[in-house]
Amino acid sequence: MPAARVVISEVGPRDGLQNAARCRPTAAKRAWIDALHAAGLREIEVGSFVPPRLLPQMADVAEVARHALTLPGLTVMALVPNAVGAADALAAGVHELTISLSASAAHSLANLRKTPEQMLDELPRIVALRDELAPGVHVEVGLSDTTGMADPEAARRLVQRLRAAIGPKAGAAQLHNTRGLGLANCLAACDVGVCTFDASQGGLRGCPCAPGASANVVTEDLVFMFEAMGVATGVDLHALVAARQALLVGLPGEPLYGMLPEAGLPKGCTYAEGRLPPAAAFLASWTGVV
Amino acid sequence: MPAARVVISEVGPRDGLQNAARCRPTAAKRAWIDALHAAGLREIEVGSFVPPRLLPQMADVAEVARHALTLPGLTVMALVPNAVGAADALAAGVHELTISLSASAAHSLANLRKTPEQMLDELPRIVALRDELAPGVHVEVGLSDTTGMADPEAARRLVQRLRAAIGPKAGAAQLHNTRGLGLANCLAACDVGVCTFDASQGGLRGCPCAPGASANVVTEDLVFMFEAMGVATGVDLHALVAARQALLVGLPGEPLYGMLPEAGLPKGCTYAEGRLPPAAAFLASWTGVV
Repeated sequence: MPAARVVISEVGPRDGLQNAARCRPTAAKRAWIDALHAAGLREIEVGSFVPPRLLPQMADVAEVARHALTLPGLTVMALVPNAVGAADALAAGVHELTISLSASAAHSLANLRKTPEQMLDELPRIVALRDELAPGVHVEVGLSDTTGMADPEAARRLVQRLRAAIGPKAGAAQLHNTRGLGLANCLAACDVGVCTFDASQGGLRGCPCAPGASANVVTEDLVFMFEAMGVATGVDLHALVAARQALLVGLPGEPLYGMLPEAGLPKGCTYAEGRLPPAAAFLASWTGVV
Repeated sequence: MPAARVVISEVGPRDGLQNAARCRPTAAKRAWIDALHAAGLREIEVGSFVPPRLLPQMADVAEVARHALTLPGLTVMALVPNAVGAADALAAGVHELTISLSASAAHSLANLRKTPEQMLDELPRIVALRDELAPGVHVEVGLSDTTGMADPEAARRLVQRLRAAIGPKAGAAQLHNTRGLGLANCLAACDVGVCTFDASQGGLRGCPCAPGASANVVTEDLVFMFEAMGVATGVDLHALVAARQALLVGLPGEPLYGMLPEAGLPKGCTYAEGRLPPAAAFLASWTGVV
Protein backbone atom coordinates (compact mmCIF):
# COMPACT_ATOMS: atom_id res chain seq x y z
CA MET A 1 0.00 0.00 0.00
CA PRO A 2 1.33 3.44 -0.84
CA ALA A 3 1.51 6.21 1.74
CA ALA A 4 -1.77 7.97 2.52
CA ARG A 5 -0.21 11.38 2.17
CA VAL A 6 3.03 13.03 1.06
CA VAL A 7 4.40 16.55 1.25
CA ILE A 8 5.38 18.23 -2.01
CA SER A 9 8.08 20.77 -1.22
CA GLU A 10 8.20 23.40 -3.97
CA VAL A 11 11.80 24.49 -4.53
CA GLY A 12 11.34 26.48 -7.73
CA PRO A 13 11.60 29.92 -6.09
CA ARG A 14 15.05 28.89 -4.85
CA ASP A 15 16.48 26.13 -7.05
CA GLY A 16 14.84 27.41 -10.20
CA LEU A 17 15.19 31.16 -9.87
CA GLN A 18 18.79 31.09 -8.67
CA ASN A 19 19.68 29.88 -12.15
CA ALA A 20 17.34 32.04 -14.17
CA ALA A 21 19.03 34.17 -16.76
CA ARG A 22 17.63 37.37 -15.29
CA CYS A 23 16.78 38.73 -11.85
CA ARG A 24 13.09 38.53 -11.28
CA PRO A 25 11.15 41.44 -9.80
CA THR A 26 10.32 40.90 -6.15
CA ALA A 27 6.63 41.49 -6.78
CA ALA A 28 6.62 38.70 -9.37
CA LYS A 29 8.28 36.32 -6.91
CA ARG A 30 5.70 37.17 -4.27
CA ALA A 31 2.80 36.70 -6.68
CA TRP A 32 4.15 33.32 -7.80
CA ILE A 33 4.54 32.15 -4.20
CA ASP A 34 0.98 33.34 -3.54
CA ALA A 35 -0.25 31.29 -6.51
CA LEU A 36 1.64 28.19 -5.33
CA HIS A 37 0.21 28.61 -1.85
CA ALA A 38 -3.29 29.10 -3.29
CA ALA A 39 -2.87 25.80 -5.14
CA GLY A 40 -2.37 24.08 -1.79
CA LEU A 41 1.39 23.82 -1.51
CA ARG A 42 2.31 24.11 2.15
CA GLU A 43 6.11 23.92 1.97
CA ILE A 44 7.99 26.33 -0.27
CA GLU A 45 11.72 27.04 -0.42
CA VAL A 46 11.54 30.76 -1.08
CA GLY A 47 15.18 31.56 -1.75
CA SER A 48 18.81 31.39 -0.62
CA PHE A 49 20.43 33.56 2.04
CA VAL A 50 23.67 34.19 0.18
CA PRO A 51 25.71 37.35 -0.52
CA PRO A 52 23.98 39.34 -3.29
CA ARG A 53 27.29 39.81 -5.09
CA LEU A 54 27.48 36.03 -5.57
CA LEU A 55 23.81 35.48 -6.46
CA PRO A 56 22.06 38.73 -7.38
CA GLN A 57 18.89 36.77 -8.18
CA MET A 58 18.50 36.22 -4.42
CA ALA A 59 19.25 39.76 -3.21
CA ASP A 60 15.62 40.22 -2.12
CA VAL A 61 15.36 36.91 -0.27
CA ALA A 62 14.59 38.47 3.12
CA GLU A 63 11.76 40.52 1.65
CA VAL A 64 10.38 37.49 -0.19
CA ALA A 65 10.61 35.40 2.97
CA ARG A 66 8.81 38.04 5.03
CA HIS A 67 5.96 37.99 2.53
CA ALA A 68 5.80 34.20 2.47
CA LEU A 69 5.62 34.16 6.27
CA THR A 70 2.27 35.96 6.06
CA LEU A 71 0.67 33.05 4.14
CA PRO A 72 -1.40 30.83 6.45
CA GLY A 73 -0.18 27.33 7.08
CA LEU A 74 2.91 27.69 4.92
CA THR A 75 6.24 26.24 6.00
CA VAL A 76 8.77 28.74 4.68
CA MET A 77 12.15 27.24 3.86
CA ALA A 78 15.38 28.83 2.69
CA LEU A 79 18.70 27.46 1.59
CA VAL A 80 21.72 28.61 3.55
CA PRO A 81 25.34 27.89 2.58
CA ASN A 82 26.83 28.48 6.02
CA ALA A 83 26.26 29.77 9.57
CA VAL A 84 26.21 33.40 8.43
CA GLY A 85 23.38 32.70 6.02
CA ALA A 86 21.63 30.60 8.66
CA ALA A 87 21.72 33.50 11.14
CA ASP A 88 20.20 35.81 8.53
CA ALA A 89 17.51 33.30 7.60
CA LEU A 90 16.55 32.56 11.21
CA ALA A 91 16.51 36.29 11.96
CA ALA A 92 14.08 36.74 9.06
CA GLY A 93 11.84 34.16 10.72
CA VAL A 94 12.23 31.37 8.18
CA HIS A 95 10.76 28.12 9.51
CA GLU A 96 13.24 25.61 8.11
CA LEU A 97 16.71 25.69 6.57
CA THR A 98 18.12 23.67 3.70
CA ILE A 99 21.84 22.96 4.02
CA SER A 100 23.61 21.18 1.15
CA LEU A 101 26.27 18.62 1.86
CA SER A 102 27.75 17.30 -1.38
CA ALA A 103 29.12 13.79 -1.67
CA SER A 104 31.34 15.14 -4.45
CA ALA A 105 34.23 17.39 -3.39
CA ALA A 106 34.31 19.05 -6.82
CA HIS A 107 30.61 19.89 -6.65
CA SER A 108 30.93 21.10 -3.07
CA LEU A 109 33.77 23.46 -3.94
CA ALA A 110 31.95 24.81 -7.00
CA ASN A 111 28.63 25.18 -5.20
CA LEU A 112 29.65 26.21 -1.68
CA ARG A 113 33.37 26.99 -1.92
CA LYS A 114 33.90 24.49 0.87
CA THR A 115 34.94 20.86 0.87
CA PRO A 116 32.43 18.32 2.21
CA GLU A 117 34.58 18.11 5.35
CA GLN A 118 34.42 21.88 5.82
CA MET A 119 30.64 21.72 5.44
CA LEU A 120 30.53 18.99 8.09
CA ASP A 121 32.37 21.40 10.40
CA GLU A 122 29.84 24.11 9.55
CA LEU A 123 26.85 22.00 10.58
CA PRO A 124 27.33 22.12 14.38
CA ARG A 125 27.63 25.91 14.14
CA ILE A 126 24.29 26.08 12.34
CA VAL A 127 22.70 23.68 14.84
CA ALA A 128 23.97 25.86 17.71
CA LEU A 129 22.32 28.89 16.07
CA ARG A 130 19.14 26.89 15.71
CA ASP A 131 19.27 25.99 19.43
CA GLU A 132 19.65 29.67 20.27
CA LEU A 133 17.29 31.33 17.79
CA ALA A 134 14.73 28.70 16.77
CA PRO A 135 14.75 25.72 19.12
CA GLY A 136 11.52 24.38 17.62
CA VAL A 137 13.04 23.75 14.20
CA HIS A 138 13.74 20.08 13.48
CA VAL A 139 16.68 18.62 11.60
CA GLU A 140 15.37 16.40 8.84
CA VAL A 141 17.77 14.65 6.48
CA GLY A 142 17.14 14.20 2.77
CA LEU A 143 18.93 12.77 -0.22
CA SER A 144 19.39 14.79 -3.39
CA ASP A 145 20.19 13.49 -6.84
CA THR A 146 21.26 16.83 -8.23
CA THR A 147 22.84 15.35 -11.34
CA GLY A 148 20.08 12.89 -12.19
CA MET A 149 22.31 9.84 -11.83
CA ALA A 150 19.96 7.82 -9.62
CA ASP A 151 17.78 4.97 -10.72
CA PRO A 152 14.86 3.42 -8.84
CA GLU A 153 16.97 0.65 -7.32
CA ALA A 154 19.67 3.10 -6.21
CA ALA A 155 17.00 5.37 -4.72
CA ARG A 156 15.49 2.48 -2.77
CA ARG A 157 18.84 1.20 -1.60
CA LEU A 158 20.27 4.55 -0.51
CA VAL A 159 17.07 5.57 1.31
CA GLN A 160 17.01 2.23 3.09
CA ARG A 161 20.66 2.60 4.10
CA LEU A 162 20.06 6.11 5.39
CA ARG A 163 16.99 5.03 7.34
CA ALA A 164 18.89 2.10 8.80
CA ALA A 165 21.46 4.62 10.04
CA ILE A 166 19.27 7.45 11.32
CA GLY A 167 15.68 6.22 11.31
CA PRO A 168 12.59 8.02 10.03
CA LYS A 169 14.38 11.38 10.28
CA ALA A 170 15.52 10.41 6.77
CA GLY A 171 12.28 11.46 5.18
CA ALA A 172 12.97 13.73 2.21
CA ALA A 173 14.30 13.42 -1.33
CA GLN A 174 15.11 15.73 -4.21
CA LEU A 175 15.20 13.59 -7.31
CA HIS A 176 15.98 15.30 -10.59
CA ASN A 177 14.57 14.31 -13.93
CA THR A 178 17.77 14.84 -15.91
CA ARG A 179 17.55 11.47 -17.63
CA GLY A 180 13.80 11.03 -17.40
CA LEU A 181 13.73 8.84 -14.29
CA GLY A 182 12.57 11.51 -11.83
CA LEU A 183 9.05 10.23 -11.22
CA ALA A 184 10.10 6.59 -11.22
CA ASN A 185 12.74 7.44 -8.62
CA CYS A 186 10.15 9.30 -6.51
CA LEU A 187 7.87 6.27 -6.70
CA ALA A 188 10.71 4.00 -5.58
CA ALA A 189 11.66 6.36 -2.73
CA CYS A 190 8.01 6.55 -1.64
CA ASP A 191 7.89 2.75 -1.55
CA VAL A 192 10.64 2.77 1.11
CA GLY A 193 9.27 5.55 3.28
CA VAL A 194 10.22 8.93 1.85
CA CYS A 195 7.31 11.27 2.51
CA THR A 196 8.60 14.70 1.43
CA PHE A 197 9.48 15.27 -2.22
CA ASP A 198 11.17 18.35 -3.62
CA ALA A 199 9.88 19.49 -6.98
CA SER A 200 9.97 22.57 -9.14
CA GLN A 201 7.05 24.05 -11.02
CA GLY A 202 7.61 23.65 -14.74
CA GLY A 203 10.86 21.81 -13.97
CA LEU A 204 12.58 25.16 -13.56
CA ARG A 205 16.29 24.80 -14.01
CA GLY A 206 18.66 23.01 -11.63
CA CYS A 207 22.07 23.65 -10.16
CA PRO A 208 24.49 25.69 -12.33
CA CYS A 209 27.41 23.81 -10.73
CA ALA A 210 26.21 20.45 -12.00
CA PRO A 211 26.25 20.46 -15.82
CA GLY A 212 23.28 18.63 -17.25
CA ALA A 213 21.28 19.02 -14.04
CA SER A 214 18.72 20.86 -16.07
CA ALA A 215 15.59 19.29 -14.82
CA ASN A 216 14.02 19.19 -11.41
CA VAL A 217 11.07 16.85 -11.13
CA VAL A 218 8.09 18.81 -12.46
CA THR A 219 5.72 19.63 -9.59
CA GLU A 220 2.65 19.32 -11.79
CA ASP A 221 3.54 15.80 -12.97
CA LEU A 222 4.61 14.67 -9.50
CA VAL A 223 1.37 15.88 -7.92
CA PHE A 224 -0.60 14.16 -10.67
CA MET A 225 1.25 10.87 -10.09
CA PHE A 226 0.58 10.83 -6.38
CA GLU A 227 -3.02 12.05 -6.62
CA ALA A 228 -3.78 9.49 -9.33
CA MET A 229 -2.34 6.79 -7.06
CA GLY A 230 -4.64 7.93 -4.27
CA VAL A 231 -1.81 9.52 -2.29
CA ALA A 232 -2.97 12.91 -0.99
CA THR A 233 -0.79 15.94 -1.65
CA GLY A 234 -3.26 18.66 -0.68
CA VAL A 235 -2.56 20.35 -4.01
CA ASP A 236 -5.28 21.31 -6.50
CA LEU A 237 -4.05 20.46 -9.99
CA HIS A 238 -6.12 23.08 -11.79
CA ALA A 239 -4.81 25.84 -9.52
CA LEU A 240 -1.29 24.46 -9.78
CA VAL A 241 -1.35 24.52 -13.58
CA ALA A 242 -2.80 28.04 -13.45
CA ALA A 243 0.17 29.11 -11.29
CA ARG A 244 2.43 28.60 -14.32
CA GLN A 245 1.17 31.95 -15.57
CA ALA A 246 2.40 33.60 -12.38
CA LEU A 247 5.76 31.89 -12.84
CA LEU A 248 6.15 33.35 -16.32
CA VAL A 249 5.56 36.94 -15.20
CA GLY A 250 9.02 38.45 -15.11
CA LEU A 251 10.54 35.42 -16.80
CA PRO A 252 9.25 35.70 -20.36
CA GLY A 253 10.41 32.90 -22.62
CA GLU A 254 11.56 30.69 -19.74
CA PRO A 255 11.15 27.10 -20.96
CA LEU A 256 8.59 25.24 -18.88
CA TYR A 257 8.36 21.47 -18.75
CA GLY A 258 5.63 19.10 -17.73
CA MET A 259 3.51 16.48 -19.43
CA LEU A 260 0.35 16.89 -17.36
CA PRO A 261 -0.01 20.59 -18.17
CA GLU A 262 0.30 19.73 -21.86
CA ALA A 263 -2.04 16.73 -21.93
CA GLY A 264 -4.54 17.86 -19.31
CA LEU A 265 -6.36 15.57 -16.91
CA PRO A 266 -7.58 12.24 -18.27
CA LYS A 267 -10.72 12.48 -20.35
CA GLY A 268 -13.84 11.80 -18.34
CA CYS A 269 -12.02 12.37 -15.09
CA THR A 270 -14.13 14.30 -12.62
CA TYR A 271 -12.12 16.40 -10.25
CA ALA A 272 -13.89 17.46 -7.10
CA GLU A 273 -12.63 19.24 -4.01
CA GLY A 274 -9.11 19.22 -5.32
CA ARG A 275 -8.90 15.42 -5.49
CA LEU A 276 -8.87 13.00 -8.38
CA PRO A 277 -11.30 10.13 -8.10
CA PRO A 278 -9.65 6.78 -7.40
CA ALA A 279 -8.11 5.44 -10.59
CA ALA A 280 -10.50 2.52 -10.65
CA ALA A 281 -13.45 4.91 -10.68
CA PHE A 282 -12.28 6.98 -13.59
CA LEU A 283 -11.09 4.02 -15.59
CA ALA A 284 -14.49 2.46 -14.99
CA SER A 285 -16.31 5.61 -16.06
CA TRP A 286 -14.38 5.61 -19.30
CA THR A 287 -14.18 1.95 -20.21
CA GLY A 288 -16.75 0.07 -18.21
CA VAL A 289 -13.88 -1.99 -16.75
CA VAL A 290 -13.01 -1.76 -13.05
CA MET B 1 14.80 -7.66 -6.24
CA PRO B 2 14.01 -6.51 -9.75
CA ALA B 3 13.87 -8.90 -12.68
CA ALA B 4 17.23 -10.00 -14.08
CA ARG B 5 16.17 -9.29 -17.63
CA VAL B 6 13.31 -7.70 -19.56
CA VAL B 7 12.38 -7.53 -23.23
CA ILE B 8 12.03 -4.11 -24.81
CA SER B 9 9.60 -4.42 -27.70
CA GLU B 10 10.13 -1.56 -30.15
CA VAL B 11 6.80 -0.49 -31.62
CA GLY B 12 7.90 2.71 -33.33
CA PRO B 13 7.89 1.30 -36.87
CA ARG B 14 4.21 0.46 -36.34
CA ASP B 15 2.70 2.68 -33.65
CA GLY B 16 4.86 5.65 -34.52
CA LEU B 17 4.96 5.54 -38.28
CA GLN B 18 1.27 4.80 -38.74
CA ASN B 19 0.66 8.30 -37.42
CA ALA B 20 3.48 10.10 -39.18
CA ALA B 21 2.38 12.98 -41.33
CA ARG B 22 4.00 11.51 -44.43
CA CYS B 23 4.61 8.07 -45.90
CA ARG B 24 8.15 7.03 -45.26
CA PRO B 25 10.24 5.48 -48.00
CA THR B 26 10.55 1.72 -47.62
CA ALA B 27 14.34 1.91 -47.71
CA ALA B 28 14.31 4.34 -44.78
CA LYS B 29 12.07 1.99 -42.78
CA ARG B 30 14.41 -0.91 -43.48
CA ALA B 31 17.49 1.09 -42.50
CA TRP B 32 15.86 2.21 -39.24
CA ILE B 33 14.89 -1.37 -38.36
CA ASP B 34 18.47 -2.40 -39.15
CA ALA B 35 19.78 0.28 -36.77
CA LEU B 36 17.37 -0.81 -34.01
CA HIS B 37 18.44 -4.43 -34.48
CA ALA B 38 22.10 -3.41 -34.45
CA ALA B 39 21.48 -1.68 -31.09
CA GLY B 40 20.37 -5.01 -29.67
CA LEU B 41 16.60 -4.83 -29.89
CA ARG B 42 15.30 -8.33 -30.52
CA GLU B 43 11.57 -7.67 -30.79
CA ILE B 44 10.27 -5.10 -33.26
CA GLU B 45 6.72 -4.44 -34.41
CA VAL B 46 7.45 -3.64 -38.02
CA GLY B 47 4.04 -2.47 -39.22
CA SER B 48 0.32 -3.13 -39.58
CA PHE B 49 -1.30 -5.45 -42.09
CA VAL B 50 -4.19 -3.18 -42.99
CA PRO B 51 -5.72 -2.09 -46.32
CA PRO B 52 -3.43 0.52 -47.92
CA ARG B 53 -6.42 2.73 -48.69
CA LEU B 54 -7.02 3.07 -44.92
CA LEU B 55 -3.40 3.46 -43.86
CA PRO B 56 -1.14 4.31 -46.81
CA GLN B 57 1.83 4.62 -44.43
CA MET B 58 1.69 0.81 -44.09
CA ALA B 59 1.26 -0.12 -47.75
CA ASP B 60 4.77 -1.63 -47.83
CA VAL B 61 4.37 -3.66 -44.64
CA ALA B 62 4.92 -7.05 -46.33
CA GLU B 63 8.16 -5.85 -47.91
CA VAL B 64 9.33 -4.34 -44.62
CA ALA B 65 8.47 -7.55 -42.79
CA ARG B 66 10.33 -9.69 -45.33
CA HIS B 67 13.43 -7.57 -44.75
CA ALA B 68 13.11 -7.71 -40.97
CA LEU B 69 12.82 -11.50 -41.15
CA THR B 70 16.39 -11.62 -42.51
CA LEU B 71 17.82 -10.10 -39.32
CA PRO B 72 19.31 -12.73 -37.02
CA GLY B 73 17.58 -13.36 -33.72
CA LEU B 74 14.84 -10.82 -34.33
CA THR B 75 11.24 -11.55 -33.37
CA VAL B 76 9.23 -9.79 -36.06
CA MET B 77 5.81 -8.62 -34.93
CA ALA B 78 2.97 -6.97 -36.81
CA LEU B 79 -0.35 -5.54 -35.79
CA VAL B 80 -3.41 -7.04 -37.44
CA PRO B 81 -6.93 -5.65 -37.11
CA ASN B 82 -8.75 -8.84 -38.10
CA ALA B 83 -8.46 -12.35 -39.52
CA VAL B 84 -7.81 -11.05 -43.05
CA GLY B 85 -4.80 -9.06 -41.86
CA ALA B 86 -3.67 -12.01 -39.75
CA ALA B 87 -3.69 -14.29 -42.77
CA ASP B 88 -1.57 -11.80 -44.72
CA ALA B 89 0.86 -11.36 -41.83
CA LEU B 90 1.27 -15.08 -41.23
CA ALA B 91 1.70 -15.63 -44.97
CA ALA B 92 4.51 -13.07 -44.93
CA GLY B 93 6.18 -15.12 -42.21
CA VAL B 94 5.74 -12.69 -39.32
CA HIS B 95 6.61 -14.36 -36.01
CA GLU B 96 4.02 -12.77 -33.73
CA LEU B 97 0.81 -10.81 -34.14
CA THR B 98 -0.51 -7.89 -32.12
CA ILE B 99 -4.30 -7.74 -31.88
CA SER B 100 -5.92 -4.78 -30.15
CA LEU B 101 -8.95 -5.26 -27.97
CA SER B 102 -10.18 -1.93 -26.64
CA ALA B 103 -11.95 -1.65 -23.31
CA SER B 104 -13.63 1.45 -24.73
CA ALA B 105 -16.32 0.89 -27.37
CA ALA B 106 -15.77 4.37 -28.80
CA HIS B 107 -12.03 3.78 -29.21
CA SER B 108 -12.63 0.33 -30.67
CA LEU B 109 -15.02 1.66 -33.31
CA ALA B 110 -12.68 4.53 -34.22
CA ASN B 111 -9.59 2.35 -34.29
CA LEU B 112 -10.88 -0.95 -35.68
CA ARG B 113 -14.41 -0.20 -36.87
CA LYS B 114 -15.57 -3.01 -34.64
CA THR B 115 -17.08 -3.07 -31.17
CA PRO B 116 -15.08 -4.84 -28.45
CA GLU B 117 -17.61 -7.69 -28.69
CA GLN B 118 -17.03 -7.98 -32.44
CA MET B 119 -13.27 -8.10 -31.79
CA LEU B 120 -13.82 -10.87 -29.25
CA ASP B 121 -15.63 -12.79 -32.02
CA GLU B 122 -12.67 -12.15 -34.34
CA LEU B 123 -10.12 -13.66 -31.97
CA PRO B 124 -11.04 -17.36 -32.40
CA ARG B 125 -10.83 -16.89 -36.18
CA ILE B 126 -7.30 -15.54 -35.82
CA VAL B 127 -6.34 -18.34 -33.44
CA ALA B 128 -7.67 -20.88 -35.93
CA LEU B 129 -5.46 -19.33 -38.62
CA ARG B 130 -2.54 -19.49 -36.22
CA ASP B 131 -3.21 -23.20 -35.62
CA GLU B 132 -3.24 -23.79 -39.34
CA LEU B 133 -0.39 -21.55 -40.55
CA ALA B 134 1.91 -21.01 -37.58
CA PRO B 135 1.24 -23.48 -34.79
CA GLY B 136 4.43 -22.46 -32.97
CA VAL B 137 3.24 -18.92 -32.28
CA HIS B 138 2.19 -18.30 -28.69
CA VAL B 139 -0.66 -16.13 -27.45
CA GLU B 140 0.68 -13.68 -24.90
CA VAL B 141 -1.63 -11.12 -23.31
CA GLY B 142 -0.62 -7.54 -22.53
CA LEU B 143 -2.22 -4.43 -21.14
CA SER B 144 -2.05 -1.13 -22.99
CA ASP B 145 -2.57 2.33 -21.58
CA THR B 146 -3.04 4.00 -24.93
CA THR B 147 -4.41 7.21 -23.46
CA GLY B 148 -1.89 7.58 -20.63
CA MET B 149 -4.52 7.35 -17.90
CA ALA B 150 -2.73 4.78 -15.75
CA ASP B 151 -0.83 5.46 -12.58
CA PRO B 152 1.63 3.13 -10.82
CA GLU B 153 -0.98 1.77 -8.42
CA ALA B 154 -3.45 1.14 -11.26
CA ALA B 155 -0.71 -0.56 -13.28
CA ARG B 156 0.17 -2.83 -10.35
CA ARG B 157 -3.43 -3.64 -9.57
CA LEU B 158 -4.53 -4.36 -13.14
CA VAL B 159 -1.48 -6.52 -13.88
CA GLN B 160 -2.05 -8.46 -10.67
CA ARG B 161 -5.73 -8.98 -11.56
CA LEU B 162 -4.84 -10.15 -15.04
CA ARG B 163 -2.19 -12.52 -13.71
CA ALA B 164 -4.62 -13.87 -11.14
CA ALA B 165 -6.98 -14.64 -14.03
CA ILE B 166 -4.62 -16.06 -16.67
CA GLY B 167 -1.25 -16.56 -14.99
CA PRO B 168 2.19 -15.61 -16.34
CA LYS B 169 0.82 -15.45 -19.90
CA ALA B 170 0.00 -11.87 -18.83
CA GLY B 171 3.51 -10.68 -19.39
CA ALA B 172 3.48 -7.53 -21.52
CA ALA B 173 2.55 -3.88 -21.14
CA GLN B 174 2.39 -0.81 -23.36
CA LEU B 175 2.42 2.18 -21.04
CA HIS B 176 2.24 5.60 -22.63
CA ASN B 177 3.91 8.68 -21.27
CA THR B 178 1.07 11.08 -22.06
CA ARG B 179 1.07 12.59 -18.57
CA GLY B 180 4.67 11.85 -17.69
CA LEU B 181 4.10 8.65 -15.70
CA GLY B 182 5.28 6.21 -18.36
CA LEU B 183 8.52 5.09 -16.72
CA ALA B 184 7.00 5.05 -13.23
CA ASN B 185 4.20 2.86 -14.58
CA CYS B 186 6.74 0.53 -16.23
CA LEU B 187 8.62 0.28 -12.94
CA ALA B 188 5.41 -0.58 -11.11
CA ALA B 189 4.43 -3.16 -13.75
CA CYS B 190 7.91 -4.70 -13.56
CA ASP B 191 7.54 -5.00 -9.80
CA VAL B 192 4.52 -7.28 -10.32
CA GLY B 193 5.97 -9.47 -13.03
CA VAL B 194 5.63 -7.76 -16.42
CA CYS B 195 8.71 -8.66 -18.43
CA THR B 196 8.00 -7.27 -21.91
CA PHE B 197 7.63 -3.52 -22.35
CA ASP B 198 6.54 -1.77 -25.51
CA ALA B 199 8.36 1.47 -26.27
CA SER B 200 8.92 3.75 -29.20
CA GLN B 201 12.21 5.32 -30.20
CA GLY B 202 12.05 9.05 -29.63
CA GLY B 203 8.54 8.61 -28.24
CA LEU B 204 7.21 8.57 -31.79
CA ARG B 205 3.56 9.47 -31.85
CA GLY B 206 0.71 7.31 -30.52
CA CYS B 207 -2.74 6.35 -31.66
CA PRO B 208 -4.59 8.90 -33.82
CA CYS B 209 -7.90 7.61 -32.44
CA ALA B 210 -7.01 8.54 -28.87
CA PRO B 211 -6.59 12.32 -28.61
CA GLY B 212 -3.70 13.25 -26.35
CA ALA B 213 -2.07 9.85 -26.73
CA SER B 214 0.92 11.62 -28.10
CA ALA B 215 3.65 9.91 -26.25
CA ASN B 216 4.78 6.34 -26.20
CA VAL B 217 7.35 5.58 -23.55
CA VAL B 218 10.69 6.61 -25.03
CA THR B 219 12.79 3.52 -25.75
CA GLU B 220 16.03 5.29 -24.92
CA ASP B 221 14.85 6.40 -21.47
CA LEU B 222 13.23 3.04 -20.69
CA VAL B 223 16.39 1.13 -21.62
CA PHE B 224 18.45 3.52 -19.49
CA MET B 225 16.14 3.03 -16.49
CA PHE B 226 16.34 -0.74 -16.62
CA GLU B 227 20.07 -0.90 -17.37
CA ALA B 228 20.83 1.56 -14.56
CA MET B 229 18.79 -0.64 -12.21
CA GLY B 230 20.87 -3.62 -13.25
CA VAL B 231 18.05 -5.16 -15.30
CA ALA B 232 19.46 -6.43 -18.59
CA THR B 233 17.78 -5.35 -21.81
CA GLY B 234 20.44 -6.49 -24.27
CA VAL B 235 20.36 -3.02 -25.81
CA ASP B 236 23.45 -0.85 -26.28
CA LEU B 237 22.54 2.71 -25.37
CA HIS B 238 25.14 4.35 -27.60
CA ALA B 239 23.94 2.40 -30.63
CA LEU B 240 20.31 3.06 -29.68
CA VAL B 241 20.84 6.81 -29.49
CA ALA B 242 22.70 6.66 -32.80
CA ALA B 243 19.66 4.94 -34.35
CA ARG B 244 17.72 8.20 -33.93
CA GLN B 245 19.55 9.45 -37.03
CA ALA B 246 18.17 6.53 -39.01
CA LEU B 247 14.69 7.33 -37.69
CA LEU B 248 14.91 10.90 -38.97
CA VAL B 249 15.83 9.88 -42.52
CA GLY B 250 12.59 10.27 -44.45
CA LEU B 251 10.91 12.02 -41.53
CA PRO B 252 12.65 15.38 -41.43
CA GLY B 253 11.45 17.64 -38.65
CA GLU B 254 9.66 14.84 -36.77
CA PRO B 255 9.74 15.82 -33.09
CA LEU B 256 11.78 13.34 -31.08
CA TYR B 257 11.52 13.00 -27.31
CA GLY B 258 13.79 11.54 -24.69
CA MET B 259 15.74 12.83 -21.72
CA LEU B 260 18.67 10.39 -21.89
CA PRO B 261 19.58 11.34 -25.47
CA GLU B 262 19.60 14.99 -24.42
CA ALA B 263 21.54 14.61 -21.16
CA GLY B 264 23.84 11.76 -22.15
CA LEU B 265 25.06 9.04 -19.83
CA PRO B 266 26.01 10.06 -16.29
CA LYS B 267 29.39 11.73 -16.01
CA GLY B 268 32.14 9.31 -15.11
CA CYS B 269 30.01 6.35 -16.10
CA THR B 270 32.03 3.75 -17.93
CA TYR B 271 30.04 1.75 -20.40
CA ALA B 272 31.52 -1.54 -21.43
CA GLU B 273 30.13 -4.36 -23.56
CA GLY B 274 26.81 -2.60 -23.86
CA ARG B 275 26.16 -2.58 -20.12
CA LEU B 276 26.17 0.14 -17.53
CA PRO B 277 28.17 -0.60 -14.41
CA PRO B 278 26.04 -1.27 -11.35
CA ALA B 279 24.73 2.03 -9.99
CA ALA B 280 26.74 1.64 -6.81
CA ALA B 281 29.94 1.42 -8.84
CA PHE B 282 29.41 4.55 -10.85
CA LEU B 283 28.13 6.54 -7.93
CA ALA B 284 31.22 5.45 -6.02
CA SER B 285 33.51 6.43 -8.88
CA TRP B 286 32.01 9.89 -8.88
CA THR B 287 31.48 10.64 -5.22
CA GLY B 288 33.55 8.22 -3.17
CA VAL B 289 30.31 7.02 -1.57
CA VAL B 290 29.08 3.50 -2.16
